[in-house]
Amino acid sequence: MKMIIFITLTTDFGTASPYVAAMKGVILSIHPEARIHDLSHAIPPQNIRHAAHFLAASIPYFPAGTIHVCVVDPGVGTERAALLAEAGGQFLLAPDNGCLTSVLNALENPIVRRLVEPEFWRSTVSATFHGRDIFAPAAAHLSRGVKPAEFGPKVDEWMKLETPAPIQRGKAIHGEVAFIDEFGNLITNIPADMIRTQPRSLKVGKQIAKHFDWVGTYGEAKPGTLVALLSSDGWLEIAVVNGNAARHLRAAVGTAVSIEL
Amino acid sequence: MKMIIFITLTTDFGTASPYVAAMKGVILSIHPEARIHDLSHAIPPQNIRHAAHFLAASIPYFPAGTIHVCVVDPGVGTERAALLAEAGGQFLLAPDNGCLTSVLNALENPIVRRLVEPEFWRSTVSATFHGRDIFAPAAAHLSRGVKPAEFGPKVDEWMKLETPAPIQRGKAIHGEVAFIDEFGNLITNIPADMIRTQPRSLKVGKQIAKHFDWVGTYGEAKPGTLVALLSSDGWLEIAVVNGNAARHLRAAVGTAVSIEL
Amino acid sequence: MKMIIFITLTTDFGTASPYVAAMKGVILSIHPEARIHDLSHAIPPQNIRHAAHFLAASIPYFPAGTIHVCVVDPGVGTERAALLAEAGGQFLLAPDNGCLTSVLNALENPIVRRLVEPEFWRSTVSATFHGRDIFAPAAAHLSRGVKPAEFGPKVDEWMKLETPAPIQRGKAIHGEVAFIDEFGNLITNIPADMIRTQPRSLKVGKQIAKHFDWVGTYGEAKPGTLVALLSSDGWLEIAVVNGNAARHLRAAVGTAVSIEL
Repeated sequence: MKMIIFITLTTDFGTASPYVAAMKGVILSIHPEARIHDLSHAIPPQNIRHAAHFLAASIPYFPAGTIHVCVVDPGVGTERAALLAEAGGQFLLAPDNGCLTSVLNALENPIVRRLVEPEFWRSTVSATFHGRDIFAPAAAHLSRGVKPAEFGPKVDEWMKLETPAPIQRGKAIHGEVAFIDEFGNLITNIPADMIRTQPRSLKVGKQIAKHFDWVGTYGEAKPGTLVALLSSDGWLEIAVVNGNAARHLRAAVGTAVSIEL
Repeated sequence: MKMIIFITLTTDFGTASPYVAAMKGVILSIHPEARIHDLSHAIPPQNIRHAAHFLAASIPYFPAGTIHVCVVDPGVGTERAALLAEAGGQFLLAPDNGCLTSVLNALENPIVRRLVEPEFWRSTVSATFHGRDIFAPAAAHLSRGVKPAEFGPKVDEWMKLETPAPIQRGKAIHGEVAFIDEFGNLITNIPADMIRTQPRSLKVGKQIAKHFDWVGTYGEAKPGTLVALLSSDGWLEIAVVNGNAARHLRAAVGTAVSIEL
Repeated sequence: MKMIIFITLTTDFGTASPYVAAMKGVILSIHPEARIHDLSHAIPPQNIRHAAHFLAASIPYFPAGTIHVCVVDPGVGTERAALLAEAGGQFLLAPDNGCLTSVLNALENPIVRRLVEPEFWRSTVSATFHGRDIFAPAAAHLSRGVKPAEFGPKVDEWMKLETPAPIQRGKAIHGEVAFIDEFGNLITNIPADMIRTQPRSLKVGKQIAKHFDWVGTYGEAKPGTLVALLSSDGWLEIAVVNGNAARHLRAAVGTAVSIEL
């Protein structure tokens, strides 16, 4: 089977604006054979932590050779670097703002470079749209076979988000909401392997959940029930069956979550 | 012309969450030649009836050989079956929850199988994300040429939504709103062939529309006018020109619609 | 490299409705080799001016040979013509309602034709969905190599939006908001080359911005700061760093913007 070149796009641009379309045009102008896949253009504006979770929960499923472009970039045009990371046989291009923190933990042996060679950028680079002017053209050139080393030098340091680890104190585990999906399900930072027995109590923010079911999947409880379960990626998850736990519990990313085993 | 393999995706996942991206990665890892097309990731959460209408109004336009994956799946992980249907030369993979009701009526000679062979799934199957762990990999294997019969046995029964039929009493026809599109247009369950003469009266929910125009298309009436017409799929449709009939009439799916001929 | 045929789609259909999916099915049924790229399905309903800006800010980045379909079409089914424009080596299919105004100004030597040959349409054409019944099939046939002249005769006149030009009076420049992106950034109709010195004052609607920073990019000022800058497409832009200028200033498309140099 001949090699097929995938370029994926993850941004906070929305699609009512012309920014994603411009990036696609730039990529296809440089490399018409590239196959572009939209991952998301609905990352909340400037929300690097959301982007970091998104990438870590999706990139590992892609085949080796895939090129991923992530543009959630509040620091565009400032001194923040532009990165090209190689990890697990895949490639990621993104601003150096922490959005790669979790995915580079999830993939193996990351080699990270700084994009410094303007020959792989658009001839004019705006101060406010590096997605179009740097990341898209660099990804397209990479997909055509330009070697990673040609884009710029290796770096040992890059921005990492500080993500709090859950704490165990006796039978209690204290963590927080790490991500809220579009069903309003709360994905916490408490990993499955910390939960050796069925939780007896659950607290989200200041609310103690008096009644909740510990389930294997949503459909085991009646619609409207508050449930706790292990997420499909192996984290403690809190949901309302056919409802919205984030609204029900007024929870946001960062809201404290405690369980007692 | 060589065969080209299309896989379409229809979900209620939204794109701010990483679920659709993970499905794309799984498909491309198994079959890099597959061409993935997004149909929708904006089905309202757990809304099987919406999904059923969506599929029936779009799948029939695709060419033979297309593989469609629909994941609107409130019963994920429970005893509900996973289906592979073959109809009109196309293939549909979806949970057995009624979402295929209308499209299997619209296409010819459906053969429906139950997905039971784990060799075409991901090696670990979560209880809450069969889109990634069962439907996406099964679709990818199907697109590589695995025969439908290898996925599981034929079944004679599958879940069908009960969708109320319109009733004619003398000159009156009583139906309901079957779908609301993003313009707020109300698509009813009253088919064009029941409407032999121009309707003289229109009632939506408890509101009698005192003034409405019977038109061929929106632009025949002034902006803001309430109009009734035949939809592009052959149903009675109620719209507000350049406005939003659902908001104007406070109508929802299931709201009663009556006309008098 | 063999020729690759791109068809892009820009609509106000949203994706919760089955309309975009139906268009994709029609295209792939006629030309399975076509590579479809979504540009936007989030153009605000019937907003031709938004569509015009969107197309002008994205189409020029695509390679020669690309076929663009834009369906924002409040006049569907009326006497409004359907157009096929050829400009800068690219092709655009759209209703004759002004949505091509800006992009045909941006590209060179437009040749515009009227789509009149029904042999390139679906066999039945509805009055309310020309995206599926005329534009999608015509684009697919064009992508298969049908010559533009076969679709219909050249026309000299087509609908053009009247877009107000900015006015300079002494040191003051009076323009308006031309577009608002999904970050809430205000893109004005005041071009970079009118701004020879740093603006000393800024007025948006009735609000005089007492404090604003003139910056090269967002990150030069602190979060929450009102800034003015040159947009990535060369227009005066007004933004709130990591915030939403449209909400902050209660600005809409058409809101007056004045600066003093």
